[in-house]
Amino acid sequence: MPDIHQQTIHDNVSRALAEDIGSGDCTASLIPENTQMTTRVIARENAILAGTEWFNAAFQTLNSKIDIRWFAGDGDEIKPDQELCRLTGPARSILSAERTGLNFLQSLSATATLAGAFVTAVSGTSAKILDTRKTIPGLRVAQKYAVSCGGALNHRVGLFDAILIKENHISAAGSITKAIQMAAELYPQLLLEVEVENMAELAEAVTTNAQRALLDNFPIELLRQAVNRYSGRIELEASGGVNLQTVRAIAETGVDYISVGEITKNIKAIDFSMRFIQD
Amino acid sequence: MPDIHQQTIHDNVSRALAEDIGSGDCTASLIPENTQMTTRVIARENAILAGTEWFNAAFQTLNSKIDIRWFAGDGDEIKPDQELCRLTGPARSILSAERTGLNFLQSLSATATLAGAFVTAVSGTSAKILDTRKTIPGLRVAQKYAVSCGGALNHRVGLFDAILIKENHISAAGSITKAIQMAAELYPQLLLEVEVENMAELAEAVTTNAQRALLDNFPIELLRQAVNRYSGRIELEASGGVNLQTVRAIAETGVDYISVGEITKNIKAIDFSMRFIQD
Amino acid sequence: MPDIHQQTIHDNVSRALAEDIGSGDCTASLIPENTQMTTRVIARENAILAGTEWFNAAFQTLNSKIDIRWFAGDGDEIKPDQELCRLTGPARSILSAERTGLNFLQSLSATATLAGAFVTAVSGTSAKILDTRKTIPGLRVAQKYAVSCGGALNHRVGLFDAILIKENHISAAGSITKAIQMAAELYPQLLLEVEVENMAELAEAVTTNAQRALLDNFPIELLRQAVNRYSGRIELEASGGVNLQTVRAIAETGVDYISVGEITKNIKAIDFSMRFIQD
Amino acid sequence: MPDIHQQTIHDNVSRALAEDIGSGDCTASLIPENTQMTTRVIARENAILAGTEWFNAAFQTLNSKIDIRWFAGDGDEIKPDQELCRLTGPARSILSAERTGLNFLQSLSATATLAGAFVTAVSGTSAKILDTRKTIPGLRVAQKYAVSCGGALNHRVGLFDAILIKENHISAAGSITKAIQMAAELYPQLLLEVEVENMAELAEAVTTNAQRALLDNFPIELLRQAVNRYSGRIELEASGGVNLQTVRAIAETGVDYISVGEITKNIKAIDFSMRFIQD
Amino acid sequence: MPDIHQQTIHDNVSRALAEDIGSGDCTASLIPENTQMTTRVIARENAILAGTEWFNAAFQTLNSKIDIRWFAGDGDEIKPDQELCRLTGPARSILSAERTGLNFLQSLSATATLAGAFVTAVSGTSAKILDTRKTIPGLRVAQKYAVSCGGALNHRVGLFDAILIKENHISAAGSITKAIQMAAELYPQLLLEVEVENMAELAEAVTTNAQRALLDNFPIELLRQAVNRYSGRIELEASGGVNLQTVRAIAETGVDYISVGEITKNIKAIDFSMRFIQD
Amino acid sequence: MPDIHQQTIHDNVSRALAEDIGSGDCTASLIPENTQMTTRVIARENAILAGTEWFNAAFQTLNSKIDIRWFAGDGDEIKPDQELCRLTGPARSILSAERTGLNFLQSLSATATLAGAFVTAVSGTSAKILDTRKTIPGLRVAQKYAVSCGGALNHRVGLFDAILIKENHISAAGSITKAIQMAAELYPQLLLEVEVENMAELAEAVTTNAQRALLDNFPIELLRQAVNRYSGRIELEASGGVNLQTVRAIAETGVDYISVGEITKNIKAIDFSMRFIQD
Repeated sequence: MPDIHQQTIHDNVSRALAEDIGSGDCTASLIPENTQMTTRVIARENAILAGTEWFNAAFQTLNSKIDIRWFAGDGDEIKPDQELCRLTGPARSILSAERTGLNFLQSLSATATLAGAFVTAVSGTSAKILDTRKTIPGLRVAQKYAVSCGGALNHRVGLFDAILIKENHISAAGSITKAIQMAAELYPQLLLEVEVENMAELAEAVTTNAQRALLDNFPIELLRQAVNRYSGRIELEASGGVNLQTVRAIAETGVDYISVGEITKNIKAIDFSMRFIQD
Repeated sequence: MPDIHQQTIHDNVSRALAEDIGSGDCTASLIPENTQMTTRVIARENAILAGTEWFNAAFQTLNSKIDIRWFAGDGDEIKPDQELCRLTGPARSILSAERTGLNFLQSLSATATLAGAFVTAVSGTSAKILDTRKTIPGLRVAQKYAVSCGGALNHRVGLFDAILIKENHISAAGSITKAIQMAAELYPQLLLEVEVENMAELAEAVTTNAQRALLDNFPIELLRQAVNRYSGRIELEASGGVNLQTVRAIAETGVDYISVGEITKNIKAIDFSMRFIQD
Repeated sequence: MPDIHQQTIHDNVSRALAEDIGSGDCTASLIPENTQMTTRVIARENAILAGTEWFNAAFQTLNSKIDIRWFAGDGDEIKPDQELCRLTGPARSILSAERTGLNFLQSLSATATLAGAFVTAVSGTSAKILDTRKTIPGLRVAQKYAVSCGGALNHRVGLFDAILIKENHISAAGSITKAIQMAAELYPQLLLEVEVENMAELAEAVTTNAQRALLDNFPIELLRQAVNRYSGRIELEASGGVNLQTVRAIAETGVDYISVGEITKNIKAIDFSMRFIQD
Repeated sequence: MPDIHQQTIHDNVSRALAEDIGSGDCTASLIPENTQMTTRVIARENAILAGTEWFNAAFQTLNSKIDIRWFAGDGDEIKPDQELCRLTGPARSILSAERTGLNFLQSLSATATLAGAFVTAVSGTSAKILDTRKTIPGLRVAQKYAVSCGGALNHRVGLFDAILIKENHISAAGSITKAIQMAAELYPQLLLEVEVENMAELAEAVTTNAQRALLDNFPIELLRQAVNRYSGRIELEASGGVNLQTVRAIAETGVDYISVGEITKNIKAIDFSMRFIQD
Repeated sequence: MPDIHQQTIHDNVSRALAEDIGSGDCTASLIPENTQMTTRVIARENAILAGTEWFNAAFQTLNSKIDIRWFAGDGDEIKPDQELCRLTGPARSILSAERTGLNFLQSLSATATLAGAFVTAVSGTSAKILDTRKTIPGLRVAQKYAVSCGGALNHRVGLFDAILIKENHISAAGSITKAIQMAAELYPQLLLEVEVENMAELAEAVTTNAQRALLDNFPIELLRQAVNRYSGRIELEASGGVNLQTVRAIAETGVDYISVGEITKNIKAIDFSMRFIQD
Repeated sequence: MPDIHQQTIHDNVSRALAEDIGSGDCTASLIPENTQMTTRVIARENAILAGTEWFNAAFQTLNSKIDIRWFAGDGDEIKPDQELCRLTGPARSILSAERTGLNFLQSLSATATLAGAFVTAVSGTSAKILDTRKTIPGLRVAQKYAVSCGGALNHRVGLFDAILIKENHISAAGSITKAIQMAAELYPQLLLEVEVENMAELAEAVTTNAQRALLDNFPIELLRQAVNRYSGRIELEASGGVNLQTVRAIAETGVDYISVGEITKNIKAIDFSMRFIQD
């Protein structure tokens, strides 16, 4: 798994704590101040785990005295009833952070699990699964991390770290060739990819120094033709209409990459429960 | 729809723009600086619209000269191919903000639409649908707003604006009665709700001045008994195992409220497309 | 005392340190870098202590090596010449944080002490003292905490955690009944209180499902009538013209709550001194 | 009145709005969205006005369409029943910002009024009234501005913009002379003031290039001696035990400055009311 | 010039204003509140202009009523005594923002001018000048923009938007080939560059799918050999010991890129003056 | 060296880390997670060291487990090949923070070294070297600290902590005398300096209670006359056209202070290298 900038985790978590705790946890005062508690997190369905550092930060930002021992790590496949971790510390703080910690775990594991399902669906082919910029606002970096926990790869993080030339850019520049030339000169250090709508545009893209072509909504048959003609001369990425039913057929055309908006724009929260251990 | 604090929208949007644009939109420079553009947003499926103010803010934070005219509003039911709004302004800025604006619209309309489905499922009964604190981290307030666009009601925003007494609080205080008494004295201005696990606990809760009881995972038959015995003496809220298949039967028991985690913890992004109009 | 969100303390304190220290404490360099110091805080008048966590944070944010031992806690009654705490650590940092730490202690103890005076004034009656939203800008949550240290209760924190329907809302909705109905439907999870100007409005309020009525500037005699007629059917809260001279008479009418703006809008700083111990 | 950095006003106000409005103003939705309103602020006691820019910012941050016309300005003496300003604009936003705007006005006018009382008390003498660093945490700059509205002068803002050498610095440096020498060399651009405890220390201070001596808790008689011996050779500032009863006698000793902690550490909120005008 | 994210300008400028104005501009109060002023900025040496948007933001953040008309734009060559722009507006605000505005202009034009000197030095060769991550802390994005104003290109912004494999990575992975393979799999969307120390390492790099090799401190003769053997098979970037004396000889070896730390790590401020026009 | 507010260091460093690391260090994942590393920083030229606390913060913000042992301190003269410090800790984090840490060290040591050169150039005279407000935006306080490491003194930090009356203020007030009087009354606690253009203005300044006169662009001969006539009656500060060639002659005229914009507006980065120690 890639290294995550601690600042991202800190920002995500302190925002989430603030929106849940606001001016103070009113129920906390019902628990005597010095009560200690031990509790464990249990998986309730099959999933790929992601978000343990966000979970930890939710508790430890609130109270550095909470100790958390994990028995599984990000990227691990987990099963129903599996004990994932054990928390020990001041009861008030554990209860105050519980929901925030679980919200991260259930959302990010959802993304990892969905990414993993797509990776599994194409296993044995040479296609690699990529994410997109269709993400939940505010969680871009966290979701991209979860995608990698699921075994898929990250496309560009945003508009700043790779170039994807689209229809509007092409018509403004005059042609695919001119748009790519312009971009290559301005940003020689960035990956240069161009979105093409049909085989003629792809033929032009191959003659430029774009490293990758995004074949948008190409039917299976055309994807296969594109691979036959241009494979090895330019990387080929399929996108559009990709889901768990269609992804295998797309992968079998021989494309290098398949980018899937669904991985990050949908969330089907994974079910976890926190169970308190009687002392 | 309730009034939304502008600060929330501003914070959500500037965070989302920052994560997408980072050090700068590299493709923007391919568009001549003074190019103007007109574009429209089209719905591609049935949904309830939510998030128009976040969408507007994404564009207008980047460039106050972008003009947006809406033909539908938050809370409206929208149909495939319906034109929702029209944007006119500097092309660079419209393209830079496009993804961020759509990400808000697709996520928040997802929540409104799911909330609306639950509301429809219980229509004709007296049960009201509530959301929970199981939300996407960082979007709590925005999602709660989207829930109201879908016609459902908001439960407490966080740990600060209502009291929900749970098992841990009860065992710390010694009994349901003592926990409620303590909370009522400390926070007379907050709604007081208590989670009960069985009919005996509910019987005790009714004798306190809790205004509402949360019946956690009660079977249908027990919910009905609870309504028969205690309706009118305490508000009854069902939760646990609620989904679109089960919610109607739960509503027909006569409970006052049904709280549904799924509404805010899952996202099934609504499909919108932005189409450029040739000048 | 309720649990305070650490983020509030951190925000209050880092803002206060920034405004006092700015680009750096110029006098600190007159003290050799490794000098250690022991110092103690002494009360100089009778008061109720509040703000010890803010005091601690002022010193420990600047230098985590400052050790602070307290001999009294928030909510305790303190006396002239009583030693409250002892600080040991690097002299430069203790001197740099001294004023900020004391400013919190003197302001928050002022609020606790004033709240305590009102609580004492009504002791033996059934009336409870509440604070209001008339607070020092930027210290809302801290002052509400200090109020609870003084033994009084908190009214709503802000516009988001309880509903208080006032004249403008009533005339916009058409009647008290309509305004309450509307609010109850939108926010079933919030306390619903309505401000009434006379006995006729109170009579109407009682027939709604408002939980509390705010009797604004009712003369003593009318308060007594209100209690006689409606006590037990709706909670009664008196406000307006409340001070230490008038509060007992108001309490003796039998109202449930008395809200007092003076507790948080006025500050009569408590006198503390920091005395350095010769090594 | 000095020019105030707009950033300070913006920070003060957005913090105050956030703590009052939180996740949203729940009562706002009771007012129809397009209702316009005219309202006026009335003084209810004699005072010196301060804080009009904070008041404006509270309303206009929330809604830039609120128009505010003032009939008095910061530093003006105002009288009971005097109309101070008139607001016109969207009713929802005016009601949401009302309390925050008034909280600034009542707190800052309190400080200006108290400062003015001390200035009046010493009128005709050559003594000038100064404030101190004993301020309400978070409002340092705003209060210093209010002090100047009341006609008094500002002492240093914090530890960074002037040097006040105290007992600890002197004992660390070895002598008054050495401490002053050290400070003068390090910070030639800052005012250099030294706190003295008795006449011998003052005698030493006069021989240094300190520009001002702070006579801490000197009895009236000693203050007079200090003036007789040293006036014109070093500026003399009295502090300690200053209140409205004692300040005139202190001023008549001939000291140049009197610094008064009470001006900024105490708040006796000025009473304003907002009255709605029927259209 | 590339499009700059407005957030970057806003952040840079508000930080700079805060550090200059702090608790308020004390001299501003010497200028009557309503005084208007016209002033112009004059170049005092040959340079390439950069930073006009930061300059504008410094004035307009403080006071939106300041009007600025430019007669030159970013990237233009300017000459001594050339009038660059004219400002009209409230005198207080113009004087308060003057230094901050000029500080941006003099720093960023310095970078553009130095970048331009390197570009000129290699003109006629095929080598392109790149910047590095050796920048002034806090001004990374602004400096990268200034580099492009000078006609040079930007290398990666930071550690997130391109991969540069160095010695430590290679020894951790076991070999150049393994390190590149690993990186290519993890981040297919990023430019992959590898730093090589000698011809043997370069020979290995060519066999991988790295797109560029950084030849660190290669003597001129070796650079020429590298070009002869590998040009066209991998992009070649020279770095180390590059200055205005050596850069032409390096460029004439035929390398594709030369990266120059000096462009952004050194600042030789350009001299501008602001002259006030008598009305 | 003066004490630096930790908040300044923290703000500077977290901003610099954010701009370098952005969404994550992509190369970090090439290093196995548990690899430890020892590395040392070597000076490559003569310089005065400054910025060690910023360097430490860059590494320790990222990972508190990095241990740093210094063999030299801020203000020390360092030589080529001198080992300055040794770092031990997790390799990933050391490599991620390396560039940011070095960028602070090279920039701030540049300022200290340049300041030191000016101090040396005037040694033996009574003139003291001052910095100005011509600084790199965002690094004002850090650079002022570096100036003091080089043995020079700090002029005012910004517009808030000292008064420098310039031409515009004088013409607005009507005369030097009136401008000074006005400023002295408003801000008795601030140093009062006035900029004069010629001997007549200086003659007037001496009769006021300004403590210092800034002689702007006075020729050497006039500076000498100014010293002869007014030394001891007002502090004399020379500025304009000061560089390492001219500064000694200026100092020998007998002026008290010489302020030098070049010290902080130019940066000639000091060369440091980080060398990894094989285990």
